[in-house]
Amino acid sequence: MRRFIVMGHRAITSADFKLDDLCGATGRLDILLRCVNSAFFLSHGIRKDVEIQLMLLGEPNPPKTVRIDGSGVKYLNPDERSTAALIRNALLQKGEGERKCSPGIYVSERSYGEVLSNVSKESKMYYLSEDGEDIRTVEFGKDSTFVMGDDQDLTDAEEEVLMAYEPKKISLGPISYHADHCITLVNNELDRR
Amino acid sequence: MRRFIVMGHRAITSADFKLDDLCGATGRLDILLRCVNSAFFLSHGIRKDVEIQLMLLGEPNPPKTVRIDGSGVKYLNPDERSTAALIRNALLQKGEGERKCSPGIYVSERSYGEVLSNVSKESKMYYLSEDGEDIRTVEFGKDSTFVMGDDQDLTDAEEEVLMAYEPKKISLGPISYHADHCITLVNNELDRR
Repeated sequence: MRRFIVMGHRAITSADFKLDDLCGATGRLDILLRCVNSAFFLSHGIRKDVEIQLMLLGEPNPPKTVRIDGSGVKYLNPDERSTAALIRNALLQKGEGERKCSPGIYVSERSYGEVLSNVSKESKMYYLSEDGEDIRTVEFGKDSTFVMGDDQDLTDAEEEVLMAYEPKKISLGPISYHADHCITLVNNELDRR
Repeated sequence: MRRFIVMGHRAITSADFKLDDLCGATGRLDILLRCVNSAFFLSHGIRKDVEIQLMLLGEPNPPKTVRIDGSGVKYLNPDERSTAALIRNALLQKGEGERKCSPGIYVSERSYGEVLSNVSKESKMYYLSEDGEDIRTVEFGKDSTFVMGDDQDLTDAEEEVLMAYEPKKISLGPISYHADHCITLVNNELDRR
């Protein structure tokens, strides 16, 4: 099981946005959409053993957590617009606790701390950081959770919450990459093991 | 210099498409848009040493070749829609030979054979193929050109044209990836050298 947790520091938390303006008025939701693509898509199908949790932390109703489970997800396409429509639909779902929005897609008001505490204790946490150990020399178990920022690094407070789980810091190379590219690189490394 | 040549086997060759329906009626232009993102974007800027050539081979006016030069490109954003608008603008430019459409973006009617023959002879050609040598053990020079399909492999005829340049077949891992993910993996490998 591979799990990606991506912080959308300003990502919109209502369905009040237009699919025609995903970069402008969504608090960079577009970054998270590309992360969904990188997490799941292969040439010939969808990765079943992957889960992504998008932490939407922007206005007006933070936090919203959208969880996508590759083993059950349907109607997922690689383009940004159609994924945005699925997220928008998720943000329309009223209720309490974690609600199923469409096959394999769930929404909740879980905070970042709750999301981390819900991750299986069997899962080793990894924190993508430029000063970490090169991913190519890191050992991985059967269940791995990768935590990363969007276009902004984790805040000091977010990093402190994460540190309680003793994450291993890993680096992907000598340059800093976009979050979706990071996910592609992590998936490739794990595919090779 | 890194150069990516991506075959858009059915990609639309007129500006007669809507930015709201990039997956439906553009012959999978959306794949090429994501390739542009992977080719150029870093966390803190645009790769200046990269060029991408998108071979648009679909109806109604094939071929159209859109060339984007990282050393001069402006107004490039990471999302699909805004890149589609730049490509659509390129497809509107009438004229002969290669025309500049916007800073760093050029359009021409060059065929695939012409595009390959215009690549500097100093550049080593690489062909992404699942039965190639693992990219991690391949030696690279200072100028490398990578040729790949969109969601379809190169046709036999396209492969034959390429073979005249004695490309080296390289593989990225045990699984077949989307073209944009391939570009991310190639860029990372070259960043590490």
